[in-house]
Amino acid sequence: MTSLKENETQVSDLIQNWAKAVRQKNMDAIMAFHSENLVMYDVPEPFQSVGLDAYRRTWDIFFKYTKPGVFDIHELNIVAGEEVAFAYGRMQCADKTDRKDYIPLDFRITIGLKKIKGQWIILHEHHSIPAAQGK
Amino acid sequence: MTSLKENETQVSDLIQNWAKAVRQKNMDAIMAFHSENLVMYDVPEPFQSVGLDAYRRTWDIFFKYTKPGVFDIHELNIVAGEEVAFAYGRMQCADKTDRKDYIPLDFRITIGLKKIKGQWIILHEHHSIPAAQGK
Repeated sequence: MTSLKENETQVSDLIQNWAKAVRQKNMDAIMAFHSENLVMYDVPEPFQSVGLDAYRRTWDIFFKYTKPGVFDIHELNIVAGEEVAFAYGRMQCADKTDRKDYIPLDFRITIGLKKIKGQWIILHEHHSIPAAQGK
Repeated sequence: MTSLKENETQVSDLIQNWAKAVRQKNMDAIMAFHSENLVMYDVPEPFQSVGLDAYRRTWDIFFKYTKPGVFDIHELNIVAGEEVAFAYGRMQCADKTDRKDYIPLDFRITIGLKKIKGQWIILHEHHSIPAAQGK
């Protein structure tokens, strides 16, 4: 049985490597530990993306509008059990939607994982910014 | 040891009761099973709300702008282990920010929980809508 601390470290390493893969625009590494049934809620539309093909398309949009090499984890909290874990925190990219130059974009992220055959796998990602208008 | 199915049912019941408490505007019931260190990412600003007092304020905003009695779970997926669980899905409320009448507002939700002394407790909530502009 893996200790809770070891599970936390495994999840942390996986997420840090995922973010690094985004900075390096390495699609295979970005998608290395995702479930085929992944459900992604991204910052821009669509409302949700289900499955690996749809997940890949969210990165096409991301790489079109954001500054290469910027996808930084500013804070990451991990809650890991033996089989299920989630992580949440603050990240930053640089976005130029509707403008000429990139500006820093802070966003919130939550990731849900399950350990399958000894390997942590991402089942769910939720990226967002607050809505433009207070509701 | 609780079976996985029992844990799923416990988490599902807790979330269904939480949503019901929102529909009934029962603040004590809304906050009955939340950690003191809860981190909430809500649809509107602020970027994050930490702790129970800040969490309570997010509901003051919610009740100001949304239609009483509408806070409906349209889809809920639960991944539960023995000690850690997360849930994600689609919900709907009715919002009248910047307008006279309520319109349906679909939003995404992710909830992270930990079992503490035999009771599932919410440590994290992430509510969002896609950003108005594709990024």
